Amino acid sequence: MDLEEFRRHGHALVDWLADYHKTLAGRPVQAPTRPGEVRSILPAEPPEAPEAFEACIADLETIVAPNLSHWQHPRFFGYFPANALLAGVLGDLVSTGLGTVGLSWQSSPALSEVEEVVTDWVRKMVGLSPQWVGVISDTASTSTLVAMICARERTTDYGLAKGGLQAEGRPLVVYASAGSHSCVEKGALLAGFGRENIRMVPLDDRHGMRPEALQELIEQDIAAGLRPCAIAACVGGTATASIDPIREIADVARRHGLWLHVDAAMAGSAMILPECRWMWGGIEGADSVVINAHKWLGAPFDCSLYYVRDEQHLMRVMSTNPSFLQSSVDSHVRNLRDTGIPLGRRFRALKLWFLIREQGVSGLQARLRRDMANARRLARIVDATPDWKVVAPVHLQTVCIRHEPGDKAGDALDEYTRVWADAVNRSGEGYLTPAMVDGRWMVRISIGAPGTEWADVAAIWAAIQRHASASLKHAPPSLEAAGR
Amino acid sequence: MDLEEFRRHGHALVDWLADYHKTLAGRPVQAPTRPGEVRSILPAEPPEAPEAFEACIADLETIVAPNLSHWQHPRFFGYFPANALLAGVLGDLVSTGLGTVGLSWQSSPALSEVEEVVTDWVRKMVGLSPQWVGVISDTASTSTLVAMICARERTTDYGLAKGGLQAEGRPLVVYASAGSHSCVEKGALLAGFGRENIRMVPLDDRHGMRPEALQELIEQDIAAGLRPCAIAACVGGTATASIDPIREIADVARRHGLWLHVDAAMAGSAMILPECRWMWGGIEGADSVVINAHKWLGAPFDCSLYYVRDEQHLMRVMSTNPSFLQSSVDSHVRNLRDTGIPLGRRFRALKLWFLIREQGVSGLQARLRRDMANARRLARIVDATPDWKVVAPVHLQTVCIRHEPGDKAGDALDEYTRVWADAVNRSGEGYLTPAMVDGRWMVRISIGAPGTEWADVAAIWAAIQRHASASLKHAPPSLEAAGR
Repeated sequence: MDLEEFRRHGHALVDWLADYHKTLAGRPVQAPTRPGEVRSILPAEPPEAPEAFEACIADLETIVAPNLSHWQHPRFFGYFPANALLAGVLGDLVSTGLGTVGLSWQSSPALSEVEEVVTDWVRKMVGLSPQWVGVISDTASTSTLVAMICARERTTDYGLAKGGLQAEGRPLVVYASAGSHSCVEKGALLAGFGRENIRMVPLDDRHGMRPEALQELIEQDIAAGLRPCAIAACVGGTATASIDPIREIADVARRHGLWLHVDAAMAGSAMILPECRWMWGGIEGADSVVINAHKWLGAPFDCSLYYVRDEQHLMRVMSTNPSFLQSSVDSHVRNLRDTGIPLGRRFRALKLWFLIREQGVSGLQARLRRDMANARRLARIVDATPDWKVVAPVHLQTVCIRHEPGDKAGDALDEYTRVWADAVNRSGEGYLTPAMVDGRWMVRISIGAPGTEWADVAAIWAAIQRHASASLKHAPPSLEAAGR
Repeated sequence: MDLEEFRRHGHALVDWLADYHKTLAGRPVQAPTRPGEVRSILPAEPPEAPEAFEACIADLETIVAPNLSHWQHPRFFGYFPANALLAGVLGDLVSTGLGTVGLSWQSSPALSEVEEVVTDWVRKMVGLSPQWVGVISDTASTSTLVAMICARERTTDYGLAKGGLQAEGRPLVVYASAGSHSCVEKGALLAGFGRENIRMVPLDDRHGMRPEALQELIEQDIAAGLRPCAIAACVGGTATASIDPIREIADVARRHGLWLHVDAAMAGSAMILPECRWMWGGIEGADSVVINAHKWLGAPFDCSLYYVRDEQHLMRVMSTNPSFLQSSVDSHVRNLRDTGIPLGRRFRALKLWFLIREQGVSGLQARLRRDMANARRLARIVDATPDWKVVAPVHLQTVCIRHEPGDKAGDALDEYTRVWADAVNRSGEGYLTPAMVDGRWMVRISIGAPGTEWADVAAIWAAIQRHASASLKHAPPSLEAAGR
């Protein structure tokens, strides 16, 4: 492909994307794809000779788009908003097109310094003190693993430089909110702690971690000869967007010298709203915080921000300095390679830089406020509807609901909940994610795709009622029996 | 930004990228930036109100491009080729613009299945047997950490489900080629092994791992009551593109039941050439292999392929299955979230799919052969020039050289080598990476940017001779004294 062809095909693809977004609202939100369907269309062998690029473009409309669940769709209410705002999309195009790789500062000075500046912008936007330093990574899962490893190394006084976790006597213990994301347990397991040394701290009736239960678990472990090491708390838990009391947890962490990691992957975006900052009150007492700019804020995936108070510690744990990466300016610059697991990095800061500038802080704030108002409005309507319940506090943009007709309870209610959610998803009218809370299934309505207005929320609510009612009447075969 | 503005700005940015590539050869390869220079230009505060997007575009030419080292430049000979071929750039644009996230299969069926098909295409292209299954990750550093963790869990029979690395009695040991990339040691340290339990296996005079030295180290460790766990070997080592004898190493691994991870991050691309496959002869005896499609092959960064023989083991170590990720088709599909550290994934397969189709396997092969021929031609010329030496075998596209004028030896020769390489880099005429081999500095000429033809290689060789000669004559201040 020469540069004139690149221009031509590039324009065509920009137009294809614009058309895709234009027609998005008319597409089924959940892919109607059967397992293996896409694989069966594609050739099993790579092409020996070049194909015309037009064929690739044509496959987008016939093979790719019909077999995607559309995260940017105005009636996408699944998982979490993973917004790819258009200014960010264009920023990312430039990043890819420049083809520059951040290995050392010298290998791409603008990449390093724009990342420094933009992560500092976000620090200010969310109200963190100047003691915090941020870096961009791919996902919160990765940052959480890094946090677990950094906690491990602080407690063991850099055991990695000696015998590692294999030479420590008393086992180290990690404490996680029972409402925390699965990546916390996974991070602790990958870091070598072992499942026997992970405690899930019980929640209160609003699904926040109980600090006194945390304190109790720590004391028990100390009495048993173990070494408490780290606490993972969350602001905006995955299932219900629940909130752990960070200030009280930070007090416990300080008292016992534990690392406190706060997962604000989803809710961190809302901290750009001063009225939401109570949710992480006491955050200055944490050691690390993760905020996914690729979620509600709108930077295209992946763009996760990891903030730490002790950057030197992070670099001591993560640094590498082989000869081929040394440059004559090393002592004058910050080498981002020493802040995470991958050595190289994309110019991810570019999409975040473009996004914040094109939207302005005020523009980002207005969109988030729109989504929160829509969530509150929906919650009021659901609460006022007979047999329907909002099953968790609506702090942000996630509304957790259940239909509880008189004759359904226990496992039958669980089955019914999953059946009607699946019916909504299969209809293509909206995408919902069922999840468990207090041992029972409910359905999350996660509001906040870029184009989601009140009319879309009203439409999914109507669809939910309709499909729930039909599921009650027709008593469809159970999910298992239907093989779905 | 509405869709019509997206079209307009998108076209403008495609054109800007085309112009950037058109003018690339005329730009200084290494950024002439002073530390802190970019940061000092950018506002310290995020903008409250939206800015015109035209301002973002304008900053690309004034702030970004002048402060990058240009990896796609035809005279970029640094680190490794990190080629962003244009078809891949356009594939990545689509991935970002679709804004789809791979969490579960259901969340993006096409994303999952195109990844399955395309990683299988590459498996066939490099000649691996059908027993291998590949997944895409960001970088080889991440895949190497995953390999270290998978090795740890196989040796401990899933110790992570019990007391982790903290409950194991006899310490586990990792063996790495002394020529291996820094990410091997880093991965082992992050996985908790501890530096005391990492052995660097000595190399032979062609810089390949000595299998009998490996065998000896393992026997010593067993005698000392330790537990050998994993071997990390490399095909295309970082400093000199050296080659470890995989077949012999695999024999040792099999004899002792150790995990064998092969780092072919760079050289893996060359395995699409049948005449190069001798380099990893015996590869079927390995447990995991990493091939970076984002290096020489040409998929824009990041796109690292991780192949394993035992996919079930990988999934058992990496799986998570919280309620909000379950779907009614789970038992019928492969959930890629269970194959690595991050939960979510970009549609990275799209850029690789477009690249392979637009180039064809034959097109990719022709470019790699061009680069290898240029490397051999340069090596012959250097070898025939008085006082110049090729200091390592040229297997692929990396030529390691040193100028050894009669009056320089030891530290003085090291200093001189670094001074002339720095002079070339500062001139902007080319980008070279000095590195150490056998305890002494040399300069790597890594050939293979997309546009690099013989004329570019000849030009860097002329520049090298000129700057080396000037450095000898003018005896410039040492690097330290110059503060660079």
